[in-house]
Amino acid sequence: MTSTYSNGFNVSIDLSGERFRVAYRLVGSKEEAQQKAREICVEQTIEFPDDLVTGGDIREHILGRIESFQPAEPVESPEPAEPGSAPAWEVVISYAIEITGFELTQLVNVIFGNFSLKTGVRVERLELPESLLKPFMGPRYGIKGLRELLGVPERPLLCSALKPMGLSVKDLADLAYLFALGGVDMIKDDHGLADQPFAPFYERVERCAEAVAKANRETNGRCLYIPHITAPTDRIFAKALFAREKGAGGLMVAPGLVGLDTMRSLADEPRIRLPIISHPAFQGSFVTSRDSGVSHHVIFGQLPRLAGADATIYPNYGGRFSFTRADCLSIVHGATVSMGHLKPIFSAPGGGMSLERIPEMIETYGKDVIFLIGGALHKMGPDLVENCHRYIEILCRQ
Amino acid sequence: MTSTYSNGFNVSIDLSGERFRVAYRLVGSKEEAQQKAREICVEQTIEFPDDLVTGGDIREHILGRIESFQPAEPVESPEPAEPGSAPAWEVVISYAIEITGFELTQLVNVIFGNFSLKTGVRVERLELPESLLKPFMGPRYGIKGLRELLGVPERPLLCSALKPMGLSVKDLADLAYLFALGGVDMIKDDHGLADQPFAPFYERVERCAEAVAKANRETNGRCLYIPHITAPTDRIFAKALFAREKGAGGLMVAPGLVGLDTMRSLADEPRIRLPIISHPAFQGSFVTSRDSGVSHHVIFGQLPRLAGADATIYPNYGGRFSFTRADCLSIVHGATVSMGHLKPIFSAPGGGMSLERIPEMIETYGKDVIFLIGGALHKMGPDLVENCHRYIEILCRQ
Repeated sequence: MTSTYSNGFNVSIDLSGERFRVAYRLVGSKEEAQQKAREICVEQTIEFPDDLVTGGDIREHILGRIESFQPAEPVESPEPAEPGSAPAWEVVISYAIEITGFELTQLVNVIFGNFSLKTGVRVERLELPESLLKPFMGPRYGIKGLRELLGVPERPLLCSALKPMGLSVKDLADLAYLFALGGVDMIKDDHGLADQPFAPFYERVERCAEAVAKANRETNGRCLYIPHITAPTDRIFAKALFAREKGAGGLMVAPGLVGLDTMRSLADEPRIRLPIISHPAFQGSFVTSRDSGVSHHVIFGQLPRLAGADATIYPNYGGRFSFTRADCLSIVHGATVSMGHLKPIFSAPGGGMSLERIPEMIETYGKDVIFLIGGALHKMGPDLVENCHRYIEILCRQ
Repeated sequence: MTSTYSNGFNVSIDLSGERFRVAYRLVGSKEEAQQKAREICVEQTIEFPDDLVTGGDIREHILGRIESFQPAEPVESPEPAEPGSAPAWEVVISYAIEITGFELTQLVNVIFGNFSLKTGVRVERLELPESLLKPFMGPRYGIKGLRELLGVPERPLLCSALKPMGLSVKDLADLAYLFALGGVDMIKDDHGLADQPFAPFYERVERCAEAVAKANRETNGRCLYIPHITAPTDRIFAKALFAREKGAGGLMVAPGLVGLDTMRSLADEPRIRLPIISHPAFQGSFVTSRDSGVSHHVIFGQLPRLAGADATIYPNYGGRFSFTRADCLSIVHGATVSMGHLKPIFSAPGGGMSLERIPEMIETYGKDVIFLIGGALHKMGPDLVENCHRYIEILCRQ
């Protein structure tokens, strides 16, 4: 087939005919929403005056295609919808899989590159066929693999964090040793630990990994030390390889700071092969509006999973952040919903969690969850090892 | 000085005493905003129960410090503020420069990592002392350098885009040849061009660079071909080096897709040394709310400049996007405001620009601006070369 447009090009494109789908939520009158849906089809693909593309392959196949349009489900929100507030619509738009070039960067670009600059439109969910997912390795471990690594087949996992920022390497390593003696499953750097002069990365990672290994020998445990390796692009691979070599048991990466595909590259790298924990730093702005941006489901569920994360950290509801229970459950859904060959991954709620909430959390999340307990483990009393033991005991009893 | 907290660590930290400042806009009652300001100081640094850090260096120096707190200037918005809407406040918080580790990734993390997950708080502007900026090269060319490269000392610059997506390499190269013959200053790939099977990256870049070089020989011109090199992290440097080798005159990068620091790495790379054009794809969600996220000034002005961009693309007001004139001017301000040794950079408004708006645009932006004209150059008539000539002529007359 050929496509002509007014400047005289004839276009014939060889495509498989396979398409992927993106559900968008649009706010406004039916006419406004329909107009916006048509704009998405153009803006996210050819970004060219519609009337100059008269027909043929570009019009038929490259342009986005509206697959369905219907009233949207109401969003569960802490504030009730104002009377007379604008109605919302869900449009599903499909795109040829080839326009992504089978690269994560361009896939995200097609989904919401330019349209992120518009208000009143939110990416709700992605439906990606196996033909598009095939080149993506996805999570190396997933829920099952991480459980095997830890030797914990069933109970919820416990992860603590090394902090506060400002401690020396020796102090952080001592802290790691105590947590590991206490039997937590994973110890991560706080996301504020980078490569500061008072706790330089290389020294910190080596000493903390040693401390955890020592405790593991003493307890016959399998605790994983997970350094935060968010770092400049030209240093991040060297840092990740160093961490692997010195005995780190996983890597924490913030895709909002280093780029989603940098996380993917680290997850895929055959010389690293460590579990990847995704941290939400600097990604909150995607979800602070209910009517614009990207859904919790996609930004903290589907996308990190596609980028190879084995667990996704997010702020728990009822803590010091403003996510609702429904938001959190939609992340769990994104982390586990069927996505071709991609393994389901752990949700890791954190941010002001406490001992008392464990039964409620398990009722909400089930057992395939990582509890991130930071400050609360310190607040339970002066004996950190004892505090960790108590926590693990409670988790075993659930 | 030492800091003690309840688990028995004693901390003494060697810091320069130099601090950088971040202005945040907070929405809510005065008491709510003051509470939120205190939370920012903790959350963005130690992320630890405040009452467990009893004094000393962590409390005095690592924690964020409130420098000022006052009613915020009203935001210029298309909709008038609703009567009875919550008041807004501006708080300036300072942080020790050392907690950034002098890395862009961690700097952004300190500015808004976790707090991006909260509503009702927006990053307004950054005040970074030279002691922090020193390790950052910033824009290699800036306004002056790019003008020298192009041999255009004064008039506004004209940049067009290769599109629509779906054209073959041959068609895109033909288009590039015509634009260059027409005398445009820069020709960029449309941001939708990645590495698709119908126009593969390596072939496209080589052919388009050749086409522009050919036209330059014929016109004795200096038109720059600027390929879009947003790509997976493990391929992006190879692509950028290839582009440089084949004669590309600059690189377009979308930091929202590859990560801000990946752009910085490309800008700094001594084997590349090309002007960098920043594209706003997937960054819109930072600015779709007036009350949350990051200001236009910071996200499209100060941050890309800090990351080495020589020009920053953004949607012009009055086009098909919803930025206001004030939003656009705040970007220009971020692109040119004094930031230590960092060179001022070009603003590059685009998105539905037309010939008729040039005088108004120049009144708004002055002459240090790059006009991005895509579809409109095609719409002016069938003879692209003639259309470009007309445009340049008009720019020369301003």
